Amino acid sequence: MSAKFPIPNPSPLLLFFTILSILFYLTPIINSRTLRTVGSSSHLSDDSSITYLWPLPSEFTYGNETLVVDPSLSLSLFGNGGNSAIVREAFERYRTIIFKHVGSSKFGMRDLGYDITKLTVIVHSDNEELQLGVDESYTLLVAKNNGLSVIGEVTVEANTVYGALRGLETFSQLCGFDYGTKTVQIYKAPWFIKDKPRFAFRGLLLDTSRHYYPVDIIKQIIESMSYVKLNVLHWHIIDEESFPLEVPAYPKLWKGAYTKWERYTVEDAYEIVNFAKMRGINVMAEIDVPGHGESWGVGYPDLWPSTSCKEPLDVSKNFTFEVLSGILQDMREIFPFELFHLGGDEVNTDCWNNTPHVKQWLDDKNMTTKDAYEYFVLQAQEIAISKNWTPVNWEETFNTFPEKLNPRTVVHNWLGGGVCPKVVAQGLRCIYSNQGFWYLDHLDVQWDGVYDADPLEGISDSAEQDRVLGGEVCMWSETADPSNVQQTIWPRAASAAERLWSSKETAPRSNARVLRRLQYMRCLLTRRGVPASPVTNFYARSSPIGPGSCYDQ
Amino acid sequence: MSAKFPIPNPSPLLLFFTILSILFYLTPIINSRTLRTVGSSSHLSDDSSITYLWPLPSEFTYGNETLVVDPSLSLSLFGNGGNSAIVREAFERYRTIIFKHVGSSKFGMRDLGYDITKLTVIVHSDNEELQLGVDESYTLLVAKNNGLSVIGEVTVEANTVYGALRGLETFSQLCGFDYGTKTVQIYKAPWFIKDKPRFAFRGLLLDTSRHYYPVDIIKQIIESMSYVKLNVLHWHIIDEESFPLEVPAYPKLWKGAYTKWERYTVEDAYEIVNFAKMRGINVMAEIDVPGHGESWGVGYPDLWPSTSCKEPLDVSKNFTFEVLSGILQDMREIFPFELFHLGGDEVNTDCWNNTPHVKQWLDDKNMTTKDAYEYFVLQAQEIAISKNWTPVNWEETFNTFPEKLNPRTVVHNWLGGGVCPKVVAQGLRCIYSNQGFWYLDHLDVQWDGVYDADPLEGISDSAEQDRVLGGEVCMWSETADPSNVQQTIWPRAASAAERLWSSKETAPRSNARVLRRLQYMRCLLTRRGVPASPVTNFYARSSPIGPGSCYDQ
Repeated sequence: MSAKFPIPNPSPLLLFFTILSILFYLTPIINSRTLRTVGSSSHLSDDSSITYLWPLPSEFTYGNETLVVDPSLSLSLFGNGGNSAIVREAFERYRTIIFKHVGSSKFGMRDLGYDITKLTVIVHSDNEELQLGVDESYTLLVAKNNGLSVIGEVTVEANTVYGALRGLETFSQLCGFDYGTKTVQIYKAPWFIKDKPRFAFRGLLLDTSRHYYPVDIIKQIIESMSYVKLNVLHWHIIDEESFPLEVPAYPKLWKGAYTKWERYTVEDAYEIVNFAKMRGINVMAEIDVPGHGESWGVGYPDLWPSTSCKEPLDVSKNFTFEVLSGILQDMREIFPFELFHLGGDEVNTDCWNNTPHVKQWLDDKNMTTKDAYEYFVLQAQEIAISKNWTPVNWEETFNTFPEKLNPRTVVHNWLGGGVCPKVVAQGLRCIYSNQGFWYLDHLDVQWDGVYDADPLEGISDSAEQDRVLGGEVCMWSETADPSNVQQTIWPRAASAAERLWSSKETAPRSNARVLRRLQYMRCLLTRRGVPASPVTNFYARSSPIGPGSCYDQ
Repeated sequence: MSAKFPIPNPSPLLLFFTILSILFYLTPIINSRTLRTVGSSSHLSDDSSITYLWPLPSEFTYGNETLVVDPSLSLSLFGNGGNSAIVREAFERYRTIIFKHVGSSKFGMRDLGYDITKLTVIVHSDNEELQLGVDESYTLLVAKNNGLSVIGEVTVEANTVYGALRGLETFSQLCGFDYGTKTVQIYKAPWFIKDKPRFAFRGLLLDTSRHYYPVDIIKQIIESMSYVKLNVLHWHIIDEESFPLEVPAYPKLWKGAYTKWERYTVEDAYEIVNFAKMRGINVMAEIDVPGHGESWGVGYPDLWPSTSCKEPLDVSKNFTFEVLSGILQDMREIFPFELFHLGGDEVNTDCWNNTPHVKQWLDDKNMTTKDAYEYFVLQAQEIAISKNWTPVNWEETFNTFPEKLNPRTVVHNWLGGGVCPKVVAQGLRCIYSNQGFWYLDHLDVQWDGVYDADPLEGISDSAEQDRVLGGEVCMWSETADPSNVQQTIWPRAASAAERLWSSKETAPRSNARVLRRLQYMRCLLTRRGVPASPVTNFYARSSPIGPGSCYDQ
């Protein structure tokens, strides 16, 4: 069912594509008049021409054939990275998804044979490190094997295993169960897809402090992220309300959890990171300092300036930074992603001034509270950098002391528009999460508002554009918990996912055809067990207003 | 890891229990002063005495020991039914649930050894038929193996595999992950539980016509039902809005589906029935005639009296009953459960009178439309009975012509209270679903309203009580779909599940302690990946109103 052959030429991608393309265009089964090169949806005129892929690939052509896929579809792996467990497990997951309806059936037998019996995956690199900017590009060829092609049937080619994962997801979306023939079919073949992401950072924030999410729920969220090619789970682990994570260096910290059951062990965190990695998703952890830290003091009350001033954390004590360093040291073991989020938002320093020993310390240092806020953030950055992390901070840090931030800082926008342009103009990097569009707890933002937001808005210089790493939709959990989180995330996170993955030419703006595609994608999510909400309801996560088809709601 | 030995005595249950009990009471590790026999919650006085099991077993005693469970827990099977795949697969499911946090961990190692390393399941019968009234009783013993006991550790004994499933669920609820020691622990051991259901029929209705539910979503619902020992999925497959099911005898019927994708093949239906059976859950199919049938005519317009009168189905044509018979014949292959629901509710016959050929037929037969309604229902009953089915009908049939219903009829209450008493007084059987309490789409009914409803209300005669098969909570889908169905079902369906399983003595009425247990159960559901809503919100499926612990919301 599988084999591994080294590809002799270490960099055969271009050659391979050339051969592929030649074979593809020569193949007699293809009527060239049916091929369309699709750059923007305006090339398409009727509904059957809608390409039901989400997010849209950057380049693709298709034909007019319908191919039938063998439920015993086999996998052949090639290349230096070919023997990867990441690819093998992904293939098994996608096989389960693709053949949901025919797997155990004795009724779906087909006498005529199948057009597609084999899936070939070629991965050139055996480097499985998952870092910012990892190569996620892939090509996907789907064509009937006519005996001429040595490539044949379905071929996913990628430089890394993570590109292969993206290609498998796209392939799975090309496959649909046909209820008439009870077979899995691919419409509009042959397909030739050449795809890569627009942005390296395509994130979703999950806040596990305002409400606790069991590991299974987090896994469900990660799994669903992979369906739209999101690639960063920003884990906002801790906030003032609860401290759910185990920190071996300071074992009383997770006394700040809501209950003894609402906690994550170190092993849970490893499990989450590994589960995400198998799906090509990084986990960016956040420790939000010095504000939002009240729960730290449940275990270590010395971290509170006083019992009437429980946050910001006590800037005057070395102990505060020792604990922070201990946390970051322990987390360095768990989270291999190079970005680490240090928060820094919504810091109200009033009560520092009202706490005698802190006030004394400020006076001794000749600092204002604003200076002390800067001092805290920069100290935290130093600690993170010393542990080989790239610090990420919410935009208030940039808005307050833009010149002082470490040059490696990634600034995380949230308060509104116009911030990333300033950040990148100053040479820093930026993540876009304008709350007016990409805060999922803003229930009155509809799918199209999310879709039309753009991380590059107001940035025309290409070097500056390059400093926008991407963007992130944020799922704050004041009113979200395991009961409604997926409904709040989906389908709107899919809007952002297409904005972040697809080129602006391919996916310029929302329109009725994009809506049809998103409704289709929402229904696809429900078929995969994800409780995605109706697309067109005014308020997010609201119930359908009456009976009807998933595809119309 | 497992073995199978025949138990020589074909009926050793009583003997076995006697031995068990003797061993249990003699075992020196048990301090008899800590044993409590719990009949009602009023015996308990403080929070730590709350028994976090849902639904509560009919008899149980416990001690004050904490036992540690080996993550390599092995299964030993005995008895004629011991080698059942149903039990083996259930054990694997529960092992995954119980050891969620320690499965792949190298950190949870324990030097001290474990108190519980073996789970013994004894199933006396090899009959795996799952029918109404199947024996679901079980005993569960959990005690440290002190070397004296030949039974030892954990023993589930049951007459059938389905009793064993119930015992495994209870065992899984006794096991909790302790974050301090990173081990799975059982508190308040030793446990001796002797349990059986109060009612044979403990159902949940799912309406797949007003909205379509993909197979994966239906499986999620079935899986979650098993966690509270519900045992019937009442599949309201078809209604006026859509006809999603394939019927081979009349292949145009599922043209009445919303779209070509919102359908169930025969194989899907088999898959659902089998998935449910593996969890001890029957599927009761419903074909709701003659009202609620408009979607039938999309494929076969002759079933409509006219294009302006699309329901009730045309009573005047033989074709109508031929189609009905064809459907029931095909469904007989799929649904082995002896009960089949024929609907019969909300039949407005006005348009029969306004359709000339139907009016002519009525006149020829000297029938009123009410007579024709009765005629239709009784014809449908005959067809179902001829195919060896026991007919179930909504209460309107009983309310309209109580004396005419086939004596085998099971009447399904919904309109309000007081119906089952009349039904059972007349010698028919009844299922309780009083919409004021057990219609889950009534979002203003809280958990305690659901809990305090009782299928036996107003019925004191014990023979009459025996004719109440049980009850069912109903998830109508006008405003429910895959995005919110689990949130609407849970946690309120759990309230009904305890009412239907636990004896009235064990679970008399809602109170603050029951609420604590239900909050705990809701959080347990979320830990298993089920998006159960906050318990205490006024409206069902509403979001949490602010940050907080799952256990308080």
